[in-house]
Amino acid sequence: MKQLLFSALFLFCFGELLAQKDALTVNQDRLEQRIFDLAKFGLQSNGETERVAFSDADIEARNWVVKTLKGFGMTVEIDPAGNIIGTKSGKNASKKPIAFGSHIDRVPHGGNYDGCVGSMAALEVIETLNENELVTEHPLQVLIFPNEEGGVMGSRAMAGNLTQAALSVVNSTGYSMGEGIMRIGGDTTKLDQAKQEKGSLAAFLELHIEQGGTLEKENLDIGVVEGIVGLKWWDVEFTGFANHAGTTPMNARQDALLAAAKFIVAVNDVTNSFEGSQVGTVGRIKAEPGAPNVIPGKVTASLEIRDLSSEVIAKVYNAIKTKTEEIAKASNVSVEFKPLDTTSDPALTTPMIQDEIAASAKDLGLSFKKMPSGAGHDSQDISRFAPAGMIFVPSKGGISHSPQEFTSAEDMANGANVLLKTILALDKKLD
Amino acid sequence: MKQLLFSALFLFCFGELLAQKDALTVNQDRLEQRIFDLAKFGLQSNGETERVAFSDADIEARNWVVKTLKGFGMTVEIDPAGNIIGTKSGKNASKKPIAFGSHIDRVPHGGNYDGCVGSMAALEVIETLNENELVTEHPLQVLIFPNEEGGVMGSRAMAGNLTQAALSVVNSTGYSMGEGIMRIGGDTTKLDQAKQEKGSLAAFLELHIEQGGTLEKENLDIGVVEGIVGLKWWDVEFTGFANHAGTTPMNARQDALLAAAKFIVAVNDVTNSFEGSQVGTVGRIKAEPGAPNVIPGKVTASLEIRDLSSEVIAKVYNAIKTKTEEIAKASNVSVEFKPLDTTSDPALTTPMIQDEIAASAKDLGLSFKKMPSGAGHDSQDISRFAPAGMIFVPSKGGISHSPQEFTSAEDMANGANVLLKTILALDKKLD
Repeated sequence: MKQLLFSALFLFCFGELLAQKDALTVNQDRLEQRIFDLAKFGLQSNGETERVAFSDADIEARNWVVKTLKGFGMTVEIDPAGNIIGTKSGKNASKKPIAFGSHIDRVPHGGNYDGCVGSMAALEVIETLNENELVTEHPLQVLIFPNEEGGVMGSRAMAGNLTQAALSVVNSTGYSMGEGIMRIGGDTTKLDQAKQEKGSLAAFLELHIEQGGTLEKENLDIGVVEGIVGLKWWDVEFTGFANHAGTTPMNARQDALLAAAKFIVAVNDVTNSFEGSQVGTVGRIKAEPGAPNVIPGKVTASLEIRDLSSEVIAKVYNAIKTKTEEIAKASNVSVEFKPLDTTSDPALTTPMIQDEIAASAKDLGLSFKKMPSGAGHDSQDISRFAPAGMIFVPSKGGISHSPQEFTSAEDMANGANVLLKTILALDKKLD
Repeated sequence: MKQLLFSALFLFCFGELLAQKDALTVNQDRLEQRIFDLAKFGLQSNGETERVAFSDADIEARNWVVKTLKGFGMTVEIDPAGNIIGTKSGKNASKKPIAFGSHIDRVPHGGNYDGCVGSMAALEVIETLNENELVTEHPLQVLIFPNEEGGVMGSRAMAGNLTQAALSVVNSTGYSMGEGIMRIGGDTTKLDQAKQEKGSLAAFLELHIEQGGTLEKENLDIGVVEGIVGLKWWDVEFTGFANHAGTTPMNARQDALLAAAKFIVAVNDVTNSFEGSQVGTVGRIKAEPGAPNVIPGKVTASLEIRDLSSEVIAKVYNAIKTKTEEIAKASNVSVEFKPLDTTSDPALTTPMIQDEIAASAKDLGLSFKKMPSGAGHDSQDISRFAPAGMIFVPSKGGISHSPQEFTSAEDMANGANVLLKTILALDKKLD
């Protein structure tokens, strides 16, 4: 009986040890504290943070990240596009790195979580592994991509897709992308050296806040991202005839704004008329000359369509265009759809990595679902040359790109634990 | 028989003399030349003229008008609001003046005829009378009102309606109305002295281009203006919730621009749903934050309604407001109608003067119709304290407030002849 008791006790303790080993988890408080520390770079007197790419605050935050990575014993390199690349050696130097990370630049008047959660979780993963003296077979790489918000600049350069034309785009700091690259330690004359060949990474993982309300609404912990929707932008120009609002009878008008208004209603109606999760948006509008007492002669409105399928985008666009041309004709104005250069193709994540993320979430006892990402992310360009996966955690109220953006410490830690567990699983699984 | 022939010849010659006397007419070429001369003040290298109130060009043109009036032997005064008042004595000093005139300031990127035709015709009337040594019973006054385009400033001051708040409004020259008044020789501390009491003028007449296409379309020479429509302005604010266009499903949106678009369509539908010539216009729109990839959270659109009847304006407004509140509710956004300070009440012209204008046109063999003025004019404020009438001449293509604005020399002369004939008729008729 005594022997039995000892055996049981032994088995219980051994089991606990095994469980603890299996339950290697990140430090939730430390992760949240780093989010708060990062938010100090660019903190304004009103308590909000401004850290647009290329600003002084952006540069200070980048230096702090580099210093932290070096403190973890990593080697750190800034590539010609300004990507921060921190490397922790693996046991097997011949293996390609498993990479993970996100961005720390922010939209103007943005929040503390977009990009920052994935970046700080990447740091937390390294620190947790170091604390547990755990060395993976593959080298690990932390990637912090510059100027994500201004056109996924760093990751696009890695994919070899950063065009010369993009370099002249100026953001709210007043610096062009080219000038900004020089400011953050890159080199615009060597951008081709930032390009990574297919197979240069074993895998890439990005943890990110959902930026939508689906996970919160469905009370789920984790989103396993199936892919990043493609998007197309157009400027839609309506040309009527500007005239005096007092002296031009209603039936003699060529009102460009009235036609544009009917177009906006049509974008909504047509987009909703198809099955699926495609979205169509008019976010920008300009009426000229723009006085209350002048009938607008010219209106330019934006049109954006997003979906995981390029065919669906084309189908919705064609239906909107047909309907809008009917509207213009009936309104005695002309209309032109001008494609803009911001188009991005849908980027599907790697099914094997989706499965590993789902398995990790399940093992951790977290609820999850597979879902598309409606927002663009650095992962979409990395997926052009490496197997890629994305992990979403809930955004409170679905709010993003706003100082009201929020994700709880528990949700961030859940995501970081799924990231950590997936890295370890891929380390075993991948060549 | 011989006697009979002589008698017939005598009667014929006498009749000719009578007819010539009756056919006192302006000099068409001289009138058009003055329009061209006036257009030289502010002439740009591209051949167009810019002469916004308070600009150097405006001041030079005003000085030229003053010099011309003095050259006609008139006494000229600048009142504290900057109105140019040129007076030609009549036979009877106890009578109140018959006044006529318009404005010579222009909207930015405007034309050579708006205001200028009525102003130069006033000069032409005086010169024609002088040439014919014709002295009226009543004193005659040429009134050139400053800054009509920036809020009928001079005439409003004469009516005692120029508010202190209006003085701080800055126009495209960079000068506020108060600063501008000082620049053109007025005195803002004495504006109350610019106010004219009821009965200070025997009558006021304004010749103006139609600024609409009705006369041309109906092939008419002259418009006899029944009144100047009143107008009301509102800012209509739609508040939804700004969110990421990629991550917010169509059915979870609170799209302020979609609601505003339905409002714009409703303004058109509701305005057309009533009998009458009322007009409703949305000319200005601003969507925030205004990016193609963000669902607009706030949209501010202008609403302007005009009609000769305040009751009709109220009726159309109420119907638009009710419909818009339904739209907002269905769109899950809020809406607020904020009245703006630019409201002006309808101003009816004096029926007796309308009849004299119509009779003058008829005597001159000109076709005419009674019509409302959809545009605001100095006459509307003058009509608050004096019997007033307006004469319209055709605008080619209905175009106004544009360099393409045009009225033919013949049409201008027709208008000036009706003005002259009406002045002489009123001189006989009025006390």
